[in-house]
Amino acid sequence: MFGNIHEECGVFGIFDPAKKINVTHATYSGLYALQHRGQQSCGIAVNNNGMIYSHNDEGLLNEVFNEMVLNYLKGNIAIGHVRYASSENKGRENNLPYVSKYTKGQIAVSYNGSLVDANKLRASLEDSGAMFHTSSDAEIFAYMISRERLKTVSTEQAVLNIMDRVSGAYSLVIMTPNKLIAVRDPKGFRPLCMGSLGESVIFASESCAIDAIGGKFIRDIQPGEVVAVTKDGVESFIEKCGQKTSSCIFEHIYFARPDSVIDGQSVHFARQEAGRCLARRDNNKDIADIVIGVPDSGLDAALGYARESGIPYSVGLNKNRYIGRTFIQTQQGERENLVRLKLNPMPAVLKGKRVVIVDDSIVRGTTCAHLIELVRHAGATEVHLRISSPPFLNPCYFGTDIDSRDKLIACRLTLEEIRQEIGADSLAYLAVEDLKEITKDTSLEFCDACFTGNYPVHVPGEN
Amino acid sequence: MFGNIHEECGVFGIFDPAKKINVTHATYSGLYALQHRGQQSCGIAVNNNGMIYSHNDEGLLNEVFNEMVLNYLKGNIAIGHVRYASSENKGRENNLPYVSKYTKGQIAVSYNGSLVDANKLRASLEDSGAMFHTSSDAEIFAYMISRERLKTVSTEQAVLNIMDRVSGAYSLVIMTPNKLIAVRDPKGFRPLCMGSLGESVIFASESCAIDAIGGKFIRDIQPGEVVAVTKDGVESFIEKCGQKTSSCIFEHIYFARPDSVIDGQSVHFARQEAGRCLARRDNNKDIADIVIGVPDSGLDAALGYARESGIPYSVGLNKNRYIGRTFIQTQQGERENLVRLKLNPMPAVLKGKRVVIVDDSIVRGTTCAHLIELVRHAGATEVHLRISSPPFLNPCYFGTDIDSRDKLIACRLTLEEIRQEIGADSLAYLAVEDLKEITKDTSLEFCDACFTGNYPVHVPGEN
Amino acid sequence: MFGNIHEECGVFGIFDPAKKINVTHATYSGLYALQHRGQQSCGIAVNNNGMIYSHNDEGLLNEVFNEMVLNYLKGNIAIGHVRYASSENKGRENNLPYVSKYTKGQIAVSYNGSLVDANKLRASLEDSGAMFHTSSDAEIFAYMISRERLKTVSTEQAVLNIMDRVSGAYSLVIMTPNKLIAVRDPKGFRPLCMGSLGESVIFASESCAIDAIGGKFIRDIQPGEVVAVTKDGVESFIEKCGQKTSSCIFEHIYFARPDSVIDGQSVHFARQEAGRCLARRDNNKDIADIVIGVPDSGLDAALGYARESGIPYSVGLNKNRYIGRTFIQTQQGERENLVRLKLNPMPAVLKGKRVVIVDDSIVRGTTCAHLIELVRHAGATEVHLRISSPPFLNPCYFGTDIDSRDKLIACRLTLEEIRQEIGADSLAYLAVEDLKEITKDTSLEFCDACFTGNYPVHVPGEN
Amino acid sequence: MFGNIHEECGVFGIFDPAKKINVTHATYSGLYALQHRGQQSCGIAVNNNGMIYSHNDEGLLNEVFNEMVLNYLKGNIAIGHVRYASSENKGRENNLPYVSKYTKGQIAVSYNGSLVDANKLRASLEDSGAMFHTSSDAEIFAYMISRERLKTVSTEQAVLNIMDRVSGAYSLVIMTPNKLIAVRDPKGFRPLCMGSLGESVIFASESCAIDAIGGKFIRDIQPGEVVAVTKDGVESFIEKCGQKTSSCIFEHIYFARPDSVIDGQSVHFARQEAGRCLARRDNNKDIADIVIGVPDSGLDAALGYARESGIPYSVGLNKNRYIGRTFIQTQQGERENLVRLKLNPMPAVLKGKRVVIVDDSIVRGTTCAHLIELVRHAGATEVHLRISSPPFLNPCYFGTDIDSRDKLIACRLTLEEIRQEIGADSLAYLAVEDLKEITKDTSLEFCDACFTGNYPVHVPGEN
Repeated sequence: MFGNIHEECGVFGIFDPAKKINVTHATYSGLYALQHRGQQSCGIAVNNNGMIYSHNDEGLLNEVFNEMVLNYLKGNIAIGHVRYASSENKGRENNLPYVSKYTKGQIAVSYNGSLVDANKLRASLEDSGAMFHTSSDAEIFAYMISRERLKTVSTEQAVLNIMDRVSGAYSLVIMTPNKLIAVRDPKGFRPLCMGSLGESVIFASESCAIDAIGGKFIRDIQPGEVVAVTKDGVESFIEKCGQKTSSCIFEHIYFARPDSVIDGQSVHFARQEAGRCLARRDNNKDIADIVIGVPDSGLDAALGYARESGIPYSVGLNKNRYIGRTFIQTQQGERENLVRLKLNPMPAVLKGKRVVIVDDSIVRGTTCAHLIELVRHAGATEVHLRISSPPFLNPCYFGTDIDSRDKLIACRLTLEEIRQEIGADSLAYLAVEDLKEITKDTSLEFCDACFTGNYPVHVPGEN
Repeated sequence: MFGNIHEECGVFGIFDPAKKINVTHATYSGLYALQHRGQQSCGIAVNNNGMIYSHNDEGLLNEVFNEMVLNYLKGNIAIGHVRYASSENKGRENNLPYVSKYTKGQIAVSYNGSLVDANKLRASLEDSGAMFHTSSDAEIFAYMISRERLKTVSTEQAVLNIMDRVSGAYSLVIMTPNKLIAVRDPKGFRPLCMGSLGESVIFASESCAIDAIGGKFIRDIQPGEVVAVTKDGVESFIEKCGQKTSSCIFEHIYFARPDSVIDGQSVHFARQEAGRCLARRDNNKDIADIVIGVPDSGLDAALGYARESGIPYSVGLNKNRYIGRTFIQTQQGERENLVRLKLNPMPAVLKGKRVVIVDDSIVRGTTCAHLIELVRHAGATEVHLRISSPPFLNPCYFGTDIDSRDKLIACRLTLEEIRQEIGADSLAYLAVEDLKEITKDTSLEFCDACFTGNYPVHVPGEN
Repeated sequence: MFGNIHEECGVFGIFDPAKKINVTHATYSGLYALQHRGQQSCGIAVNNNGMIYSHNDEGLLNEVFNEMVLNYLKGNIAIGHVRYASSENKGRENNLPYVSKYTKGQIAVSYNGSLVDANKLRASLEDSGAMFHTSSDAEIFAYMISRERLKTVSTEQAVLNIMDRVSGAYSLVIMTPNKLIAVRDPKGFRPLCMGSLGESVIFASESCAIDAIGGKFIRDIQPGEVVAVTKDGVESFIEKCGQKTSSCIFEHIYFARPDSVIDGQSVHFARQEAGRCLARRDNNKDIADIVIGVPDSGLDAALGYARESGIPYSVGLNKNRYIGRTFIQTQQGERENLVRLKLNPMPAVLKGKRVVIVDDSIVRGTTCAHLIELVRHAGATEVHLRISSPPFLNPCYFGTDIDSRDKLIACRLTLEEIRQEIGADSLAYLAVEDLKEITKDTSLEFCDACFTGNYPVHVPGEN
Repeated sequence: MFGNIHEECGVFGIFDPAKKINVTHATYSGLYALQHRGQQSCGIAVNNNGMIYSHNDEGLLNEVFNEMVLNYLKGNIAIGHVRYASSENKGRENNLPYVSKYTKGQIAVSYNGSLVDANKLRASLEDSGAMFHTSSDAEIFAYMISRERLKTVSTEQAVLNIMDRVSGAYSLVIMTPNKLIAVRDPKGFRPLCMGSLGESVIFASESCAIDAIGGKFIRDIQPGEVVAVTKDGVESFIEKCGQKTSSCIFEHIYFARPDSVIDGQSVHFARQEAGRCLARRDNNKDIADIVIGVPDSGLDAALGYARESGIPYSVGLNKNRYIGRTFIQTQQGERENLVRLKLNPMPAVLKGKRVVIVDDSIVRGTTCAHLIELVRHAGATEVHLRISSPPFLNPCYFGTDIDSRDKLIACRLTLEEIRQEIGADSLAYLAVEDLKEITKDTSLEFCDACFTGNYPVHVPGEN
């Protein structure tokens, strides 16, 4: 429902060779569409005739940027970043885009992902004289690319050369004094797509960011692909493509915005289909009188469930749009109060009704239990909880922040125990087998390690 | 859709005779549930053993209050207020609750409404020595009540005595050194209800605020009723009740939160019924392939339209939850951009589809036209716009802020002209006759002057 | 030394009939010169063609005002205020200028002083229907003047009529829709002077505010005088003049800026003369090797002492200009540390020297003791403390905030006991008889009640 | 007078082996005493058992730090920094202390100075794989030291090894996981001293910072000296000492706090002696009736002039302590107004007098001209300006920010022309030959290149 799993980043980049667009404003607006991917810090770096200027800080876009700052950042290439800060990388120095300077000039890096061999790479770079200012993997990339660049003909070639030496998830947008380069790891863990706006080329984590600025979606960056944009045009390098992919299934289930289309798959339809799958497994049109979703992330699946089952789709929970990070909780037992403030059940809809509630996930289970209690208190006679994802059982090493196993309710309890703990009349999760069903519009294969433990690359300590 | 009509206030009050509850936090949380009724300033006044302390400022609750301020405000009676500031009363001195002092001690007033004879009342009070510090009607009430109080036995009696001398809309929550008093004008223009939390008595503009703090809804305050709460109990005075009511229909159509129940009528169901009415008048199951609502205010009516027509309810517009007051717009043509940033149409859903879009109102028409253009651009082949309210034709003098006639598109153009201007394939409004249909769960009669021009009380210049 | 006695206000007003000057900026700059008279809140009210707009808040001028606010305040008459908030009137509603409205239009009041009969006046006004929003005496004046105004021909006449009915200290600058009026109480407790800038007329608490904006000092307002400025000119009313005056001696000793001239007396010279008087009473050129002052308030008197005694004037304490209200003190014993951070003794100057230190006052004695310890630690062999005022023995009821008797060291201890407690080798205060000596350039008589207990008007509980 | 020459940094460090002191608070307080050396940004880095945490931002100490931040920074070694940002290094990434990580762990650097061969060093480091994140020389030191460290036994030895390879001014305080190291360049351009507080060792740019926290001054760090502090004690390395020094004379004339003692010379006495030198060259006791200084920086020299000449020292200008960076200037001709707001001449003192005014420098001459005009307007009959430094004729490459030659009035005009332009009756500067006179308590030799052009090290483009 709200808040225990976090995407760690959203990236954006734009190159306007014709110098007709305010690329800073375009990046600012594009990042607004990606704000759900990271709410703890954000930044923009802009290339003004080869000089890169940047601004970043902790906070949402509306807290970090103001007109003065936006007007100060001028140029015709820009990259941006929104970030979720995990406990290990809270420091402000880790805000992105990462900007540094080497013999060939400045380089700026926006990054979404997580390297499984970061510590080893870091140590090896330090051994040869590198100093690190951040704990961000973006700095590892900056060092590896810049050092490789000294031995080869171009930054894009340097990127291609180092791709065999790093392992894990990475979608990068890189800016040099005269280029904008997009990189997606060969496994395709994290999304990355390309669009256009007039003569400009755009890269973004999700297609919704291209839509948001009135751009035209062109295509997804392929897993393993490197795309370089210069004033002379766009060049694609596919020599690292062709591996078996392991795209993150959780983007579709939870992270991405429903209006995004990732690798050909509409996120909205994936979620709606998850609801249909749940209904098909229930196969019982009389289980309930109404189907409601937990706003906002459970609504699509609830609609799918309702359509498949024929049970009427209803609105039974009202979400307060104003409760934000700064709401002051000061009394004991406030977790329950906060659920009630955020999600008010509507007795007029629920009273005397048997209800199917669809939510996207159960992490620790406490919020869920509070919600079911509130729904019953509003008059529901039965509460059947349907979860549009399989149970979380394993940590993610590829750029999301799933709780440790000891906090995941599904690691501690059986399905029946969970049902009892949260107080539902029945409980069902999406079947792991149905994951393929919900993403049938894409040809990529998925990483479902958080559900299955099948990690697609070697992870120290896991496989 | 967003933003040209404004409710002017939300009120809240709580009296905890047992001193078990933190009434300041309860008021803070209750106001959060009423934030949609006023986003420009807010305030809380708390009674600590007869002394009233207050804090208010411009901004949302999370901007105005912090822990230090909340902890400073201690006591066992509290009232609160959220405010929309119209052009005439922007000054900070107009923030409520209004607090002042006279012979009988301090008095604090939270107020939602608008007096049609405010200028005359003000002049008359000044003639007898009053000085005004604000342009808020709350100060008029404070003066009238305090002067009347000197001639009578209690504040509640003073209130009853002055009710014949004022005309217009007023829902008041008044705090004295030892009482909490709720007042609703005899016409019942604005909502006001009563609840409980343990031994505490609560008053609030909408029932959602009682729900939000875990309280129990008791009943609506009747039009004309005065309710006084002391440590000894609750007393109701109904001698001013019994007039023909003119409750605001627009609370149901637009202002109130869908999870509120006002005078027995669920707002959610009223909106859903408006959608059903629109579908009934269309009486054409083949007009479109899907029905979508404009989030968030059009969703309930869209669901009603879908259910009545049998055309599938779909999600076709994604609302960005992060775009707030501080989004920086700096380029020409940004109004269109802003619509796109806030509401992204989903081609995956819309492409090749004939679409019914349901929205709650058209004010000036420009936002609407941009939206239809975006929906067509996303691939919709036909766009049929249905508005879940009748056309606005007249200003409101009872506490809302409808644009002046020269800016209202429905005052300038015929239905067909509006359809052309906004670019819809067809356009229909809710019929004025259907207003009764959508509020059939309440026995009150409504004011629909904004649609019909039938003002229920004398308004200088209008009737 | 720093901080236990507070002036409660500074006032400023300007009328520019020719509309050539930005009166808001002039008031802003004038208040900057008066900031020492009140650092807790400030405000400006401006008259724009009869409508009065105002802004005030807690904080220093640079915290309360910004360009946007200053540009918003337009007009050709303005009044301003800086305020020290005592414990009883901390609330933001007490910030001045006080602005309200009555039958004759708006009235704004800036006020410096304290009425001894405020409670009685308040009660009497409430009995006849007044409501109070503040605990400031300015509101009492606004009510009394506005009510009197309804019975007489002009605001200035109303002011004159009420002057017999109030008792205490008051220097007022009043703004009406078309006038600027200055009022000084008949005893002349607080200073008030008049100046010009081009065709504009200026009123200010101290002459330094006139200098600060490049104006020309004209004269002091006489005790009891009322001066009214309209677009047609300046009119003086002296019918309340002629009483025996009791101007505040402490303005010269402590409050006022040294570059101000009050009632003909240069504050700088008064302080220098206090030093001379101290030296004359010592009559011992060999008491010390150097004379140093405690910056900034003790420097003038130290210079006077040095000149009279012939002992060299030296700089032995360096004041850190950056330590302000927001310095974070978190450890025990920090009072001492704070003295050291603010005032660093210079061993190069002090080592092996017998030192006369001149300070303006001793209130509680603790800061003083720390300072002497630091000076000895820096190498001074003897420390002779000279105080350029007599000992504080009595509270002030006329607009300053001297500590209560139980906290004043001079109420608790004899001269010799104080000397021991603070650790000085010798200690002398200015003799009460010398007060006349230091203000010989003025013909006014002074109130010295804080030293002598001779209150010039009846004070309940004191005489 | 105010503001055209800037020191670029102040440094501070403390190592508390006994873990008895709050080193963060000590650093915070110490930096307060150094705030005059840099007002644009500040920072503190603290070593908590080998892990370094830091906080820095733009603003004064009271703006950058709050209790929460100070409490978060825990440990027993700390270094701090205050910074003036020149045009080339404004970016926030340049705030110090600079913190980074290499094979041997983290390293933090506080730095005051300027390297004349920074670009060459930077290029050379980049050639061997370094990436730069800042334009601060501190990063050059971090790279050079860390690389050298890999080839040698200790950080202090690494520092010693690189000292021959860098040229220019540098006073460094370096923190490693277990050491605190102070470094002063062999020329001794910038000051650096050592003190103690209990068992703690302190390093600071000026002795006033040691005084401020109640510490004991031990000695100056010698030019060329490296001092390393570990939990086992203090070790000094003097192998780079012994060069001819070129300590900055301008520290004594202008930058340093008067209560500091630098290399044995009291800054206060240096300035007083400069005044004596000026008086000796005038050799005319009848040149004026009074001597006044421009507060605060001209007061010491004025006192010296008065003592030497026998002309009475007086206070003729009052400085407003509240005018800060945020004063809003909006009208034409405001430079003059600002001078008047900041420095109010006192007619009571100046009227009819012939005045010697002593100031510390003339940079562009405009402020000076305004001041003289104000003093004449206050009644002075003659104004003789004496400057306690020689004329600026050359830029500084060693850590101060003197205006470019085209803006320096002394580069454009002769002495007589300057006198006419600023409107003085006579004008004299300190003679270059007298510089030795004013610093006779120190045995170091000085850099006076800003006056003479004799640069003590090779500066590209200058010698």
